[in-house]
Amino acid sequence: MEDSKKIINTGLRGVTVASTRISHVDGEAGKLIYRGFPIFDLSDKTSYEEIVHLLLYESLPTEQQLINLNKRLTDQRKVPEKLIAALKTQPEDALPMDILQAAVPMLAAGDSNAAELTIDNSQRIAESLIAKIATIVAAWHRIRNNLDPIAPDPSLNHAANFLYMMTGQKPDETMARFFDTCLVLHAEHSFNASTFSARQIASTRAHMYAAVAGAVGSLSGELHGGANTRVMQMLQKINSVDAIDDYIRQVLETGGKLMGLGHAVYKTGDPRARILAPMSKKLGELSGNTKWYDMSIALEEKGKKAFKEKKGIDIYPNVDFYSASLYHYMGIPMDLFTPVFAVSRIAGWTAHVIEEQFGGADAKPVLYRPASDYVGDYCGPAECEFVPMEKR
Amino acid sequence: MEDSKKIINTGLRGVTVASTRISHVDGEAGKLIYRGFPIFDLSDKTSYEEIVHLLLYESLPTEQQLINLNKRLTDQRKVPEKLIAALKTQPEDALPMDILQAAVPMLAAGDSNAAELTIDNSQRIAESLIAKIATIVAAWHRIRNNLDPIAPDPSLNHAANFLYMMTGQKPDETMARFFDTCLVLHAEHSFNASTFSARQIASTRAHMYAAVAGAVGSLSGELHGGANTRVMQMLQKINSVDAIDDYIRQVLETGGKLMGLGHAVYKTGDPRARILAPMSKKLGELSGNTKWYDMSIALEEKGKKAFKEKKGIDIYPNVDFYSASLYHYMGIPMDLFTPVFAVSRIAGWTAHVIEEQFGGADAKPVLYRPASDYVGDYCGPAECEFVPMEKR
Repeated sequence: MEDSKKIINTGLRGVTVASTRISHVDGEAGKLIYRGFPIFDLSDKTSYEEIVHLLLYESLPTEQQLINLNKRLTDQRKVPEKLIAALKTQPEDALPMDILQAAVPMLAAGDSNAAELTIDNSQRIAESLIAKIATIVAAWHRIRNNLDPIAPDPSLNHAANFLYMMTGQKPDETMARFFDTCLVLHAEHSFNASTFSARQIASTRAHMYAAVAGAVGSLSGELHGGANTRVMQMLQKINSVDAIDDYIRQVLETGGKLMGLGHAVYKTGDPRARILAPMSKKLGELSGNTKWYDMSIALEEKGKKAFKEKKGIDIYPNVDFYSASLYHYMGIPMDLFTPVFAVSRIAGWTAHVIEEQFGGADAKPVLYRPASDYVGDYCGPAECEFVPMEKR
Repeated sequence: MEDSKKIINTGLRGVTVASTRISHVDGEAGKLIYRGFPIFDLSDKTSYEEIVHLLLYESLPTEQQLINLNKRLTDQRKVPEKLIAALKTQPEDALPMDILQAAVPMLAAGDSNAAELTIDNSQRIAESLIAKIATIVAAWHRIRNNLDPIAPDPSLNHAANFLYMMTGQKPDETMARFFDTCLVLHAEHSFNASTFSARQIASTRAHMYAAVAGAVGSLSGELHGGANTRVMQMLQKINSVDAIDDYIRQVLETGGKLMGLGHAVYKTGDPRARILAPMSKKLGELSGNTKWYDMSIALEEKGKKAFKEKKGIDIYPNVDFYSASLYHYMGIPMDLFTPVFAVSRIAGWTAHVIEEQFGGADAKPVLYRPASDYVGDYCGPAECEFVPMEKR
């Protein structure tokens, strides 16, 4: 084995494992691009449904393509009765991400053509998952509160329909548009941990549901999708602008982190945070309670200054930082922040699974099967002589 | 980025991503070692429960340690009633691997301490999963056949109890011992695809259930755990020793593969196949029907010869090759072969998750987050100018 292939215990950071046509994260320039298009344009000018088309079908839709896609997505929103029945058996204090991870393979169980590996079938399943994950997250929230799930409303777009199914209230235009933009912003982010999980599972030729269920598990981790919840927990703990200085001092003294500030890839700021911040401000103002936004902006400014002065490092808000207060203003319960991430990211996951399954011009799908370095156990790297039980 | 870190579209083959103390696959020498001990010794002299102790607690157990572990495992076999209730909602033609992947997060939903990341808690969850996955696989097989699940029998060891819960018959001593050996042989295999999935998901600090559910998804792929089912399908298709020559000729002509012959890592033969083959022979003889074994051994010999002559390559049976006929002789339905793989491999998965979570002397846990090479889309690698819908 060549030495160049020994990259031990670094979590594959900076290791380029595959080529992709789906998205590009330019950490140095602070740019995020979905199939060629910068996120600033997309978030400003498109809907989540257009992004679904862009990610799955490699182009922004024409008007007719979008009408057709909308029709297929709205037709697919309803989940099988057997799945709702299964959810109703589960304990109401279950973590919503566990429920979502259980639900995805049950969608497979209800799909008699889950395993056929053709591009048409994968696109069909992708659309079905994009349509249904929103329904599952909303349905579970109702079920755990002893409320009946609310049937999807085909007159609402994906974003507005999710908020409606979750709360029972149709959101006003501003909130619906802002949530739509959140879905656009979270839809895709290259080879992040959950997407890599999905691709890695799909590389065994497991079906798309199996891969997506793995991605849901990965997203649940606090170092990944769980981070937006932790930002809100931090804001609630601090609880006032006046308490920020003390909190930062304490974090610096204990070698801790400010949640939502800093990113593994973006070195000069996460473009999504810049788009989310004004939406949080606006919804704060409309709700008559700007506290959570005010705390966020103050924490960003003071945290940036303090970490530069004391540690010499630049920290910038990432996508989780302003989505926390924004989701809170939208009435989304804190423990649904990460499931809501999945409601959007399913578009990226499924696009990546399709790329893994069928490749592009430059991609050559192959089972991910890395090597490891056996460093031995209590006999050292040598083999142990077997010891019968009576001599142990 | 250094060039040495660009390893594109190779599925990480030969790339050493982590150090491990758990096992060693020496492909050149045809050796498999669990924590220092060669698989030939372990399969000959230990039980699955001893292997669980070895993998989770890093030593072969003393008699008292084994008694304690057996007690804890048998106490943990029962699964929550809510989980059984959920399984009963599902369609009877669901793929058993989909059901298993759904069941694991429901175990999390029933565990109020799923998310605490301490080594004690992880070992507790590991034992619980090892005990319960067997119960889930057997229970689903009963439920889909409109039969009541059979309660675990604490007087039986893990292997015998699984066969009992699945069939309702207590296996005789030979079959119980052989199945125990199968569990020993399948328990662990370094950074195979499903184990890598589990570690990669756990690296986000997602809980163990989330990681294991991902691993189940990965194992379901036909290039991984699904291979044993495909061996049996191939044997059924050939259906007689006389038809083997024709089958091999056809495979060679169409550029196909002989299922279960060949392995990504073992270049001189898979030691597990050498252990499984005589067990298949013996059970064939005891059942009075050696057809499936006879076909397997003939296919191995003729296939090896033909591939050497026509393609110049050496092919050897892997773990899936003889486990297919062996499981068939044990009365395990073909679509449970892969779930049975999971019944065993859960020991390895959970040991790896613990190593990922808490590291060893040489391991430094870090989120797996590889890079990718954006090769552009229809605008090429450059950014596209946004096109409003009316101009698309």
